Amino acid sequence: MKLLEDRIRKDGIVKEGGVLRVDSFLNHQIDIDLYCEMGKEFYRLFKDSDVTKILTIEASGIGIACITAQYFHVPVVFAKKSKTSNLANDVYSSVVHSFTHGNDSTIVVSKNYIRPGERILVIDDFLANGCAVLGLKDIIEQGGATLVGAGIAVEKSFQNGSDMLKEQGIRVESLARVRSMDPDDGIEFD
Amino acid sequence: MKLLEDRIRKDGIVKEGGVLRVDSFLNHQIDIDLYCEMGKEFYRLFKDSDVTKILTIEASGIGIACITAQYFHVPVVFAKKSKTSNLANDVYSSVVHSFTHGNDSTIVVSKNYIRPGERILVIDDFLANGCAVLGLKDIIEQGGATLVGAGIAVEKSFQNGSDMLKEQGIRVESLARVRSMDPDDGIEFD
Repeated sequence: MKLLEDRIRKDGIVKEGGVLRVDSFLNHQIDIDLYCEMGKEFYRLFKDSDVTKILTIEASGIGIACITAQYFHVPVVFAKKSKTSNLANDVYSSVVHSFTHGNDSTIVVSKNYIRPGERILVIDDFLANGCAVLGLKDIIEQGGATLVGAGIAVEKSFQNGSDMLKEQGIRVESLARVRSMDPDDGIEFD
Repeated sequence: MKLLEDRIRKDGIVKEGGVLRVDSFLNHQIDIDLYCEMGKEFYRLFKDSDVTKILTIEASGIGIACITAQYFHVPVVFAKKSKTSNLANDVYSSVVHSFTHGNDSTIVVSKNYIRPGERILVIDDFLANGCAVLGLKDIIEQGGATLVGAGIAVEKSFQNGSDMLKEQGIRVESLARVRSMDPDDGIEFD
């Protein structure tokens, strides 16, 4: 999506260690008109997939998931990051490893909101190693629902997360695929 | 807002101890068409306030803030809950007491995203004691910006948060004001 790539080139900041900061327009501060164009693009990509629900993870996925959902007219559910290891028995849970933070976290969704027969689209702001999408897929399958695909704002394609997901049969659509980035040489897209 | 009050009466669940669960349509699972109607109502209420930015707190405020922001065509910023007491020096911070969780938490916003001259509307899903809005007001004022008001989805008016905020000169607009609620007798609105 050229609009998003251009914006990342203009306002994205590449830090040492493979960190791409898009704080000023994609998370923390959000350019809502850009989000709307991204939501319309996700709708164009998945409008024939009979999506009945959108699933994301708190916190930074919630905004783009909500904006996208209005074009589908389907509910949004967001997985919560559990702060305790004592989980209620009315939730589905999965463990997600974060390479950014170097730890595991448990995500939970109430069993009421993932139902057999639902066709669920995952929306998230970033895709790196793909662990978050796998955790959401695990939860979707625990509930007997179907994952129809993953719509990602920014993919770090050099981290191979989407290859791993596609090998598992998951449709992945990323609006911007960062092939390489360097504090001096800038950002290149696939 | 009758649409929201009707929905709370129909799908809200009152628990012991003054807890109102609206998980099935307002947070955790989100009825996005309802959110859009709420966003339009916030726009109607604040459209003459020269709003330049919307500020909320992660996580459950982000969705309604983003949906609302598209009617104003202004950016959203969300305050993050800090997990450490070591704050970077490029953030404004404030301490918010949660009566629900019985603890204090520190919220932070990058100094880049609150600027002198900005006119900021706070949007949040719940108002109980008003501490979250006060924390956001503190951050807005640290940045030299102006708080134009607070748009709240559900206010527990029996907890007097909005009275306290109004005494401080803050305009508060709540779409549903819960005057009383009881597991047996149901919910009454102002």
